[in-house]
Order: sequence, then C-alpha cells, then structure tokens
Amino acid sequence: MRFASFEWKGKKLWGIVDAENQLVCPAERLFEGAYPSTLLEFLAISHGDLSKIKIPEDKGSWIKFQEVKFFAPFPKPVRNVFCVGRNYQDHVRELSKKDLEIKHPQFFTKATTAVTGPYDDVYIHPEVTSQVDYEAELAVVIGKPGRNIPEDRVYEYIFGYTIINDLTARDLQKNHEQWFKGKSLDSFCPMGPWIVTKDEIGWPVELDIKSFVNGELRQNSNTKHMIFSISKLISILSQGMTLLPGDVIATGTPAGVGAGFTPPKFLKSGDVVRIEIEKIGFIENKMVG
Amino acid sequence: MRFASFEWKGKKLWGIVDAENQLVCPAERLFEGAYPSTLLEFLAISHGDLSKIKIPEDKGSWIKFQEVKFFAPFPKPVRNVFCVGRNYQDHVRELSKKDLEIKHPQFFTKATTAVTGPYDDVYIHPEVTSQVDYEAELAVVIGKPGRNIPEDRVYEYIFGYTIINDLTARDLQKNHEQWFKGKSLDSFCPMGPWIVTKDEIGWPVELDIKSFVNGELRQNSNTKHMIFSISKLISILSQGMTLLPGDVIATGTPAGVGAGFTPPKFLKSGDVVRIEIEKIGFIENKMVG
Repeated sequence: MRFASFEWKGKKLWGIVDAENQLVCPAERLFEGAYPSTLLEFLAISHGDLSKIKIPEDKGSWIKFQEVKFFAPFPKPVRNVFCVGRNYQDHVRELSKKDLEIKHPQFFTKATTAVTGPYDDVYIHPEVTSQVDYEAELAVVIGKPGRNIPEDRVYEYIFGYTIINDLTARDLQKNHEQWFKGKSLDSFCPMGPWIVTKDEIGWPVELDIKSFVNGELRQNSNTKHMIFSISKLISILSQGMTLLPGDVIATGTPAGVGAGFTPPKFLKSGDVVRIEIEKIGFIENKMVG
Repeated sequence: MRFASFEWKGKKLWGIVDAENQLVCPAERLFEGAYPSTLLEFLAISHGDLSKIKIPEDKGSWIKFQEVKFFAPFPKPVRNVFCVGRNYQDHVRELSKKDLEIKHPQFFTKATTAVTGPYDDVYIHPEVTSQVDYEAELAVVIGKPGRNIPEDRVYEYIFGYTIINDLTARDLQKNHEQWFKGKSLDSFCPMGPWIVTKDEIGWPVELDIKSFVNGELRQNSNTKHMIFSISKLISILSQGMTLLPGDVIATGTPAGVGAGFTPPKFLKSGDVVRIEIEKIGFIENKMVG
C-alpha cells in the first residue's frame, strides 16, 4: 500500500495511492466512521496496523493525480528527520579520497522546516551558501514506538519507505563542523512522493537508487551496498533512545554527489534534480534562487 | 512572567507561576473564554504576546507548588532542541587542553524524547554508556517565527529563558563523531522549571550560571562569557532556516564538566545534579540506573 499527503480543491488531505493508474483515495473514504486527520496521526494511533483500512473497489470515486498537489508524506514531521553520514563506501572514498573503516554510524538531523514536497521548488539560499549539493537517499519510516530494538526485530518497527534528497550546503557543513546547520536550510529536504509499506519492498532491502541532474545520471547504486544495513542502523539508533511512529530515518547516500567531482559540480538556479528508487518512484525538484 | 507546564489532580495543565509565593495559576483562569490547551499552542497562536492574559489578583484560587508536579515547559517540544557546542572559552580549554579560536558555532540537536521534567530522575543507561556527563546551560525560547534575523532584531523574536542540563554520553559522542546520538538518550534533557519572559531578564543577558553534583560546586560562570552572544547565535542559526514559536535553543556550557577533570568525574547512579541560573531558579535531577 502507498500513503501520501496532498491538496485537493484547497483541502489538505491524506490517503492511499494507486500509482499505476495515477489515482489517490482520500482517508475519509477508507475508514468506517471517524478517521485520523493526518497520516502522522494515523501512524500514532494505528502503529502501522492496516487492518482498519477498507479500500473502495470502485475506482470511480478516486481522484486523478492531475487534480492534486502532493506534499511530503509528513508535511510537518513529528520531529527532526534522522540522517546518517558516510554509509556507502564509494561515497566515503569520493569525499575522503581514500577508503576509511567506518566503525560507528554518524547520526545527525535535519530541521523539520527543511521538509518540502516531492515536486516542489528548492530555494538554494544564495545569500547564505554557494555550495549546494544533492544526496539521493532511501528513508525508512517508523510505525511503532521502540527502544533498544534488537537487529533481528527491526523489521517489526518499520512502517515503510520513502525517498528524500538530503540537500546540503557544503560550505556551512564544513564551517560549522557539526552538520545540522548545513543540512537544515528551508526546503533542503524534499520527500515523497509517498510511503510504500514494507510488505511491498522485500527484506533485506535491495533497491536500485539513482540521481540525475538535468537528466545526467550522477548516482547509481543499490541499497544493498550500505555499510550499516537498515537493521543495524535502526538497532544502534534506538539504543537508549525511543523511536516514535512517523520518525523518518534517511539511510545515507552513495557516490556521485557534486562535491565528489573535480572541480565540484554544485547546484545552481534552474537545475533539476531527480531521484529514483526502485519499487517507490521518483522525486524531482527544480533549484530556484 | 513565568510560564510552566504541570500536573494537578491527574490533569495536564499549563499556566503562570508566582515563584516567591510558590503558587501556580492554570491557564483556564488566565483567559476570558477559550484558551490554548498547551503552552506550545499558546506560543504558536500568540507569538509571545502577553496582552490576552488576565492575572487573577485573588491568590486564593492559585494552586500550591506542593500539589503539582512540574513537567518541562514543553513536555513534547515542537521539534528537536537546538544546542551549541563550545561556546565558553574556558570549556573549550578544559576539553581541548588549549585555547582554540572558534570561528563558527557548532549547532546540533537533542531528540524530543530526551526532554524530561526539572525534578525528574534521569536514567543513565548503563547498558549503552559508561560516561554520562552534565552540562549546565541557559536556553532561549523563541516566541515568533523568523528567518535571516539580523543581530539587532533578535530580541524581538525571543519569548523567554529556561534552564537545561545538556546531559551527554561522552563515549557515544566520541564514537559517533556527530554529537546527536550521545546527546539524545531518553531523559538526557531535563528542562525548566519554567520559562521566564525576557522582560524580567535584561538585555544583554548576563546571568550567573552554576552546577553542583551532590552539593559540590562544579561549574560557576556567567552567560556574559559566551563566545557567541545570544544575538549572534540566533542570527546565525536563523540564516536560511526558519525558527518557530516554541523552539528551544541551548546556548552552551562553561568549564567544570566531568570530562574536564583528570581523571574524569562521570555521573553514577544516585548522584544529584543541580543547575542554578540567576533570575530563573534551579533544576535538580537524580541519576538512576
């Protein structure tokens, strides 16, 4: 099942998606009686249990993609987006110019105000940075609360997966040392276009991941190449720290980012960045500013 | 004015505090008609404007401290707590063993689930860390949304001030390099006991700040010794990133943390950490685990 948040006729809605037929069905038609007002509230109440959802068989009442504007699945996330640095060895190599043994994942966050829609424009903040870079990432969405989750039980806590572009101001990232600031500019976290539930993805998660800038292939890998698998990442992240329904955990980016080229290929106004992940779809954002 | 969140007769309330007489007045008695259900909602609606609040003169209807349990002012913050590393030169010196020129503030965050009450027990997570440390910090609370705030207008965006203990697992902080993980264990962010509005604090902010472990004075400084002033910190943090009503920004810790001693003085079960800041009050938490 695919879950999205979107606007239709001026109303902010959420619901499920039929990607093949390019249709959405709003939440009010999925439940008998009262229903959660946001996708985040649905997860907080259901912990990812899909059994209360009754999908209308008659697709005549569904809404066409052309009539809606997609938001990020969580336009206002429950808290900052969790991220992981250096989780593909080829990306470690392109930035460090050598292989490094990564013993512990580097966790940081992106501010909630960075989150924007899957097809929205991204403002590149020329008054603050001149080194905007893209990072294609698979993001895991948590379904139920958990702390100290053992690796072999991580699957139970996952609700599904989505795509994010972990946009980064490389100059701010470097200057401030802690990465939060350079990762958190407004609109620097396009997300979506929807969340695909875990049952449709397989386990372990082995998905092709690609990014394109103005149609030129830049990143091309598979999530099986992560240094820390999704099980390891979430198990370690949850040690001593409770994960919540709706938490979004971006899992790192493979080689091919702008900073990895000589000279670097940073983004400029007018550039279009597209990120594709197998079995999920794509997000595509134009840089403006 | 002082604002707090608290439990009284099983109800979760917020309201104002008369610290001198040890009394609280719940929000329902402060407004004519409808009133915001949480302190965070009050800030989101009012942007810190206090003019709608009518303080009952008859203190007979106020509630005694003994009858309430104080929560953090925001038990569920709008998003992660913002923090700043290395913002007092004597603290830089105690950890780096030399003076460093700090050119840019190091921003990171603490997870929302780390937040706990001003007098609550702190769980030291012995299964995850053996190096728990305290950090006394003045925290600024934002009143209204703002981006690219000039230094000379930062005061307008501040609602008030509170106290936090930026508890840190030094081993995790070091291993994971990015500090988020070691700063974000559950209960590692005691906060409170209330927010004091900016009009009661003065400008610039020059407040004595002290911490004690089991009654022994460990940190003893004044917020005037910050490397980056509150104006500078918030101006820089807001560059390209919108701050929200209810955002909490901890401003760094002075010398005297456990890791600064030889050998280090980390916290153990049973230790009591007290943090005092002039014109605000104190928080005091027992370590358990």
